[in-house]
Amino acid sequence: MAGPIRRFSEFHWEDTDLLAYKEEGSAPFKAITRQVLFRHPALKSELRYFEIEAGGYSTLERHQHVHAVLTLRGEGQCMIGGQVFGIGENDLVTIEPMTWHQFRANAGEALGFLCMVNVDRDKPQLPTPDERKALAENPAVKTFFGE
Amino acid sequence: MAGPIRRFSEFHWEDTDLLAYKEEGSAPFKAITRQVLFRHPALKSELRYFEIEAGGYSTLERHQHVHAVLTLRGEGQCMIGGQVFGIGENDLVTIEPMTWHQFRANAGEALGFLCMVNVDRDKPQLPTPDERKALAENPAVKTFFGE
Repeated sequence: MAGPIRRFSEFHWEDTDLLAYKEEGSAPFKAITRQVLFRHPALKSELRYFEIEAGGYSTLERHQHVHAVLTLRGEGQCMIGGQVFGIGENDLVTIEPMTWHQFRANAGEALGFLCMVNVDRDKPQLPTPDERKALAENPAVKTFFGE
Repeated sequence: MAGPIRRFSEFHWEDTDLLAYKEEGSAPFKAITRQVLFRHPALKSELRYFEIEAGGYSTLERHQHVHAVLTLRGEGQCMIGGQVFGIGENDLVTIEPMTWHQFRANAGEALGFLCMVNVDRDKPQLPTPDERKALAENPAVKTFFGE
């Protein structure tokens, strides 16, 4: 048995694999890694840590399951349901069902965050070109998209 | 609607009540507060933040449900199943079912930690005097108990 404690050092945790965010080519994303901090047979949710390198971004997606996010490292931005928010140290983000969302690190700094989700959850959906275009009608989202 | 972001400031979160750890007199504890960071009807677990003031401690207890803990502030100690561990920044602690456990802040410093648990969970059990005495047979635990 590994023991009850897994030590933290420079945003890696002991006995915790540093994983690709998703399978390469499965969806658009850039410069992001994943560590599963807690996935236990008795727990109905799991806690993951995602880290986006400076200039990187998560996939623009939506799904029925809820995300509960806590910023653990750095600062960045998120787009939630057509609005853009700056996020920093320990800020909490709730992503409601079927809400388009995406996270971006700022240019000069990594963004790391915890994300709690149910173990049983649906697969994310990607936007159609029209859905993406509708989001970008908000100038703040257009800028967020880098367009 | 409160919006998707709840800002952090000095270990309090926006729109988040600062609660008593437990009902006073229900179990032994000292100098500890609770904030529920995420409790959402669609999530099967919840995420709480506990903060123990310098010199304070959580209840010595055990239960069937699993605790998944991440240290967010300061340093302290925990007793897990008869062993004592120092914990600090972002260290992870898994508390398996029916394992006696207790957290303590160090003398000069608050200890704050996230704790993920299932929403549906059993009530904690307190030790009998004999069970507590058995734990204190380990000198490190005896010291941890302050005996």
